[in-house]
Amino acid sequence: MKKLINAPESVVSEALAGMAAAHGDQVKVIEPNVVVRVDAPRQGKVGLISGGGSGHEPMHGGFVGPGMLDAACPGAVFSSPTPDQMLEATKAVDGGVGVLQIVKNYTGDVLNFEMAEDLAEGEGIEVESVLIDDDVAVEDSTYTAGRRGVGGTVLAEKIVGAAAEEGRPLGEVAELCRKVNAEVRSMGLALTSCVVPHAGEPTFELGEGEVEIGIGIHGEPGRKRSELRPVDEILPMLVEPILRDLPFGSGDRVIAFVNGMGGTPLIELYIVYRRLVQLLDEAGIQIARNLVGPFITSLEMAGCSITLLRADDELIRLWDAPVNTPALRWGA
Amino acid sequence: MKKLINAPESVVSEALAGMAAAHGDQVKVIEPNVVVRVDAPRQGKVGLISGGGSGHEPMHGGFVGPGMLDAACPGAVFSSPTPDQMLEATKAVDGGVGVLQIVKNYTGDVLNFEMAEDLAEGEGIEVESVLIDDDVAVEDSTYTAGRRGVGGTVLAEKIVGAAAEEGRPLGEVAELCRKVNAEVRSMGLALTSCVVPHAGEPTFELGEGEVEIGIGIHGEPGRKRSELRPVDEILPMLVEPILRDLPFGSGDRVIAFVNGMGGTPLIELYIVYRRLVQLLDEAGIQIARNLVGPFITSLEMAGCSITLLRADDELIRLWDAPVNTPALRWGA
Repeated sequence: MKKLINAPESVVSEALAGMAAAHGDQVKVIEPNVVVRVDAPRQGKVGLISGGGSGHEPMHGGFVGPGMLDAACPGAVFSSPTPDQMLEATKAVDGGVGVLQIVKNYTGDVLNFEMAEDLAEGEGIEVESVLIDDDVAVEDSTYTAGRRGVGGTVLAEKIVGAAAEEGRPLGEVAELCRKVNAEVRSMGLALTSCVVPHAGEPTFELGEGEVEIGIGIHGEPGRKRSELRPVDEILPMLVEPILRDLPFGSGDRVIAFVNGMGGTPLIELYIVYRRLVQLLDEAGIQIARNLVGPFITSLEMAGCSITLLRADDELIRLWDAPVNTPALRWGA
Repeated sequence: MKKLINAPESVVSEALAGMAAAHGDQVKVIEPNVVVRVDAPRQGKVGLISGGGSGHEPMHGGFVGPGMLDAACPGAVFSSPTPDQMLEATKAVDGGVGVLQIVKNYTGDVLNFEMAEDLAEGEGIEVESVLIDDDVAVEDSTYTAGRRGVGGTVLAEKIVGAAAEEGRPLGEVAELCRKVNAEVRSMGLALTSCVVPHAGEPTFELGEGEVEIGIGIHGEPGRKRSELRPVDEILPMLVEPILRDLPFGSGDRVIAFVNGMGGTPLIELYIVYRRLVQLLDEAGIQIARNLVGPFITSLEMAGCSITLLRADDELIRLWDAPVNTPALRWGA
């Protein structure tokens, strides 16, 4: 295991310390390991929180700031955060008009966010929760009943964050988040495994000529192993299942997101994006906006995922709205 | 070699096609492989161009846009661009008041930019050129007479880009660039090699327990191989040579840049930044601004580099000025 760390048990706390030091104008870190918007709580604004295991940076802590999340709860690497973290996040961002939890569909996350919701409501804070389950690769998975939540989460947090910033009420913000989840689909692939610091060895084995199609963000098995071929031939194995699933159709407009898994350099992600443009063009689908880069990663895993969100004028307007977070920033 | 590419010979052209498709509101790609600001040329504004081998993305193409570069010339992976590319870039961005070339100090880049300068002046365009040679690791290197140009280039392009945007004349813009180069120092390390697509195998070998201290961005040898230890013990091997070299001293203010080499995930870069804050604090050096992320990479190499720029009020003001490029964006 070759990592720029001190010890497996200090990875998350030390990374959060570094993050707080680097982005003190945008976020603060409060006990127990909660990344909070520096000006929270905002009175009269719905609070938006998310969370999940660490190892997917910049998600979620890098998305805390005006126009996106109010707080994020990072668990240990690839492990759910605790209800206690979520409760503290909820209390820290409660502006008196309720808090929305955006929850990726993994069993531990779901259970703990449910528990946190009960605890927060016991303290008089109104809470709604929306599950993200956009990964079309598999129906159930190692850590999941139902589909996994992956890249769609990034788009949901941006769009729903913009709506919350406009002062919309909790019910509307939650409904918008459900709409985004209904319209978004994703699938990923891996060229290499990653090494969880506590484990010290690769999560799975993949041969020199192999690619795992439909990989999960924790290295969970996907649909199949395939021979590694030119990316122009590989990419349809992600895009076709995504298009079939919603289904997306000719005339649709989408926000297209090419995500890097952590170890794949940007030069390759642009080659992937080039091919995605061709495939969507052939399907008559118009890319209204795009995002290319490593935003929901799996430590140093090499690979990528594709996320497509069918977007109407309203979703595009909210996507374009100003955002000022460590990892996404424009118009601010 | 496991990469999301089609063929080694098409990597650069396909990545540029993807980049142009993704960022068509900011950049365009013209023949022969030049990334140009979409609204170039800007009349009355000094044009700013840079370039170098591909494989360091987002540098330089990702830094083209208002407030930073006007054009970038990407060569083949880890190979100098041609004088022809540089001449076309110069002509594309010439707004009638001259063009500044920002050149990383590698022999091929230097020779070709000199030739391009002659060619452009032959066409009546005033050109100045500034070398960046901020890497304190080694005095001469595989591709270099004198020190290598590395992370300081990113800071120079941002700061000098802001000055050019203000409409300052060529001589002043060039002088500012020389000042930034005089005040900036860098050093890097690698945990793994990278694989150049045309070569198909690792550029160098590094044992499981080894780290290369002072690595070049093309995998050129550094100062020494060291045993991989906790990052808190490794980081002084970069920071102390940097501080000694300028030298930086107590009371100095700096822009501190923790760069990822491509294969190192963000969670580790924040752990590095945390340690950097401690070391600078011990030295009495104040971090006025920071940048953490993969901005000058070496394909999928795992590792990081540290860049420190001693910054006065003017440099900090220019750093803060709006920038709107694919890879750096704020205030716009």
